[in-house]
Amino acid sequence: MLENIRVVLVNTSHPGNIGGAARAMKNMGLSQLVLVDPQDFPSADAVARASGASDVLDAAQVVGTLEEALVGCSLVLGTSARDRRIPWPLLDPRECGVAACEQAQQGAHVALVFGREYAGLTNEELQRCHFHVHIPSDPAFSSLNLAAAVQVLAYEVRMAWLAAENQPTKTPKLEATAIQSSQPVTADELESFYAHLEQALVEIKFLDPAKPRHLMSRLRRLYGRSEVSKLEMNILRGILTETIKAARGEHSEREKVDV
Amino acid sequence: MLENIRVVLVNTSHPGNIGGAARAMKNMGLSQLVLVDPQDFPSADAVARASGASDVLDAAQVVGTLEEALVGCSLVLGTSARDRRIPWPLLDPRECGVAACEQAQQGAHVALVFGREYAGLTNEELQRCHFHVHIPSDPAFSSLNLAAAVQVLAYEVRMAWLAAENQPTKTPKLEATAIQSSQPVTADELESFYAHLEQALVEIKFLDPAKPRHLMSRLRRLYGRSEVSKLEMNILRGILTETIKAARGEHSEREKVDV
Repeated sequence: MLENIRVVLVNTSHPGNIGGAARAMKNMGLSQLVLVDPQDFPSADAVARASGASDVLDAAQVVGTLEEALVGCSLVLGTSARDRRIPWPLLDPRECGVAACEQAQQGAHVALVFGREYAGLTNEELQRCHFHVHIPSDPAFSSLNLAAAVQVLAYEVRMAWLAAENQPTKTPKLEATAIQSSQPVTADELESFYAHLEQALVEIKFLDPAKPRHLMSRLRRLYGRSEVSKLEMNILRGILTETIKAARGEHSEREKVDV
Repeated sequence: MLENIRVVLVNTSHPGNIGGAARAMKNMGLSQLVLVDPQDFPSADAVARASGASDVLDAAQVVGTLEEALVGCSLVLGTSARDRRIPWPLLDPRECGVAACEQAQQGAHVALVFGREYAGLTNEELQRCHFHVHIPSDPAFSSLNLAAAVQVLAYEVRMAWLAAENQPTKTPKLEATAIQSSQPVTADELESFYAHLEQALVEIKFLDPAKPRHLMSRLRRLYGRSEVSKLEMNILRGILTETIKAARGEHSEREKVDV
């Protein structure tokens, strides 16, 4: 599906940026790179900055015009730094990622178009785009590095793709026992813990049962919001057991020392 | 508000990446850069890649250890490429941006920590982080360029910031002292707590210094994600102090009873 989304770089000056863009694409699972009239390509600088993504560079299609780069595309999204005189439908990067994925999933081809390092896309080129995409940078310093701009849009495409694929982005593969011990404790387990904790605090004379004040409610608030796992609860209960033993002088070693 | 969020680069090899990171930060409205033991800085390569963001480089703080870089921070978010044996609370970049903004808006200081180009952060460094952040890259080609990773997280911080700016702030009005004591503790305060906790666990003989296993890292994970407030920390520290006294049989009342 992601192979339906191509990145189009128009008239790039610095081959290092082409390499950086290729790396950003491959990191995010994109592979289709089209270069419109690049000023210096192929180039060792591009390969160096691609850092392992030279397969994307090798497969890159080099064409003479934006028109050729967009052949077959039913959705064209063009990055734009500035507000233009002619208002155009404008997306932020997140909306761009969602739109690109929706189209690509239906089998359509999508182009993400990036302009020149210093001058961006011309008005004519921008008018070939169905939507403009603006990366919300600080107006006081708004021009992103080309590879950084590709990174942001490719990242949003991947986030939308992962959401659409319904693949959880964080899949820790755990053994059954690990899953069990990482499960949060139940309310009754938490109540037993609070009773044990209160007992220990009395034993170490931190809590005066005659003047309990807000102590237990504050500790309930802390542990209540922490989603304590079963494993962590075992540790906390173990600490309380040993604390009570220590307060009572019941440690075998301690007794030995005392004698 | 964004000035409460610092970017920490640990032991960076290539000064060009420091420059690229500075540019990405400034594009997204971030200005606080901290460099932990950079291999080559200051550097002309950094200035070249910063491309107009050399003010961020000039103001960068260079320190010797991660600990120094995190002084004053109550939320530390560390980028991690790999699944770890001990699972840690994991955020995606979007969740990271929201969490960083929420904290920064309450006046707390936040660190986004990035590791070495080839080796990332060490396990010890990762354990100093309250949350790990994973940029959901293609598992077949997962390692982002350092400046590109900074770009993605800085972009998500900005998106969260813009969303928050457009919403009325929902901060209940609290008394000055209540606000202060409900503020989360800083990373250095948390480190002192862990040292105190470890000492207490040894005193009550729950922790054998010769065989520490994963105990402290599991407790770090629990308290690290709980956003412990200053008031709660006072309670926890008080409990530890009394626990140690009890273990040593130093309680005045206990002595009285013993006599």
